[in-house]
Amino acid sequence: MQQCIQNCTDCHRVCLETITHCLQVGGEHAAQAHIRLLLDCVQICQTSADFMIRSSELHQRTCGVCAEVCDRCAADCERMAANDPMMRQCAEMCRQMAA
Amino acid sequence: MQQCIQNCTDCHRVCLETITHCLQVGGEHAAQAHIRLLLDCVQICQTSADFMIRSSELHQRTCGVCAEVCDRCAADCERMAANDPMMRQCAEMCRQMAA
Amino acid sequence: MQQCIQNCTDCHRVCLETITHCLQVGGEHAAQAHIRLLLDCVQICQTSADFMIRSSELHQRTCGVCAEVCDRCAADCERMAANDPMMRQCAEMCRQMAA
Amino acid sequence: MQQCIQNCTDCHRVCLETITHCLQVGGEHAAQAHIRLLLDCVQICQTSADFMIRSSELHQRTCGVCAEVCDRCAADCERMAANDPMMRQCAEMCRQMAA
Repeated sequence: MQQCIQNCTDCHRVCLETITHCLQVGGEHAAQAHIRLLLDCVQICQTSADFMIRSSELHQRTCGVCAEVCDRCAADCERMAANDPMMRQCAEMCRQMAA
Repeated sequence: MQQCIQNCTDCHRVCLETITHCLQVGGEHAAQAHIRLLLDCVQICQTSADFMIRSSELHQRTCGVCAEVCDRCAADCERMAANDPMMRQCAEMCRQMAA
Repeated sequence: MQQCIQNCTDCHRVCLETITHCLQVGGEHAAQAHIRLLLDCVQICQTSADFMIRSSELHQRTCGVCAEVCDRCAADCERMAANDPMMRQCAEMCRQMAA
Repeated sequence: MQQCIQNCTDCHRVCLETITHCLQVGGEHAAQAHIRLLLDCVQICQTSADFMIRSSELHQRTCGVCAEVCDRCAADCERMAANDPMMRQCAEMCRQMAA
C-alpha cells in the first residue's frame, strides 16, 4: 500500500510537470485531448493517493479508475516519446501505474 | 450533463459542511468511519464534477465510483438523520447522487 | 460569505471550461503561461471555496491569494476577449472575483 | 524548489494520516477546530505543491499562506504531542514547513 501511495504521488507530479512541458513544445503535444488526459491523470492519481492515505474502504474502486486513466495516458504519451525524454518518463510512469 | 455537474458540486459542498457539523456534535457523528466516508464523498464528487466539466471521455468511470461512495455515505447519514436536519439534508443529497 | 462561496465555485468551473476551449482554439490561447494561469485559478478558487465552506479562520488569506490570481487571469483573458465570448465570460468572472 | 515540493507533498500526507489517527483517538484530538486545521493544512500543502510543480509565478503567495496554516497546525498538534508519536511527527513536519 505504501508503495502504491508513493507511485500515485509520483505520477501526479510527473503528469503535472509534463503538462507544462507539452504546452511549451506546442503542436500535437498541446492538443486538447492530450492535455485533458494528463489533467485527468493528475487528478485521479491525487484522489487515489488520498483514498489510500485515509485507508478508505473504497480505495480499490478509485485505484481501478486510476489504472484505466493511466493506461490511456501512457498510450497517448508513448506516441510522442521517441525523441522526447520528458514524454518517455511520463509514459513509463503511467505504464507502471496501469499495471 | 449540466445537471449532473451541479449535483456533484452541491454534494461536495453539503458533505463538507456536514463534516464541520458532525465534528461539532461529536460522538458517533465524529466517528472515524463516518468522517472518512464524508471526506471520500467530498473528494470524489469534486473529481467527478471536474471530469465532466472537462468533457473527459472517462467521466462515466469517475461518476460510477462517485455513485457508489454516495450510496454508502447516504446510508451512513441516514442512521443519524432522525432528529438532525443537517444529516437528513446530507443523506438526501447523497441518496439523489447514488441514483 | 454564501455569495463568495458561490462565486469561487462558479469561477472554478468557468476557468476549467475555458481551458478546454483554449486548447481547442490553439495558438496564443494554448500558450503555456495562459493555461498555467487558468490552472492556478481553477485550483485556488476551489481551495478558497473549501476554506469558506469549512468556516476556516484563515479563509481570508486564501481569498486574498485567490483575488490576486483572478486579477492576473482576468487581464490575460481580456487580451483575447474581443471576438471570443468564452474568453469574455471568463475575463468577467475573474474580474468580479478580483474585486 | 524540489525540496520544497517534496516537503509540501510529505506534509499533505502526514496531515491526512493524522486526521485518521485523531478521529480514532477521539476527545480533544477529534475536536472541530483541530480537524479543520488539519484539513486546511492538507489542502493548502497540495495547492502549494502544485503551484510549484507548474512553476507558477504566484507560488510564493500560496507558499506564504501554506507557511501560516502550517504554523497554526504545528502549534495545535504540539499541544497533544507529549505522549503521542503520531502527533509529534505531524507537529514536527508542520513546524518545518512553517520555517
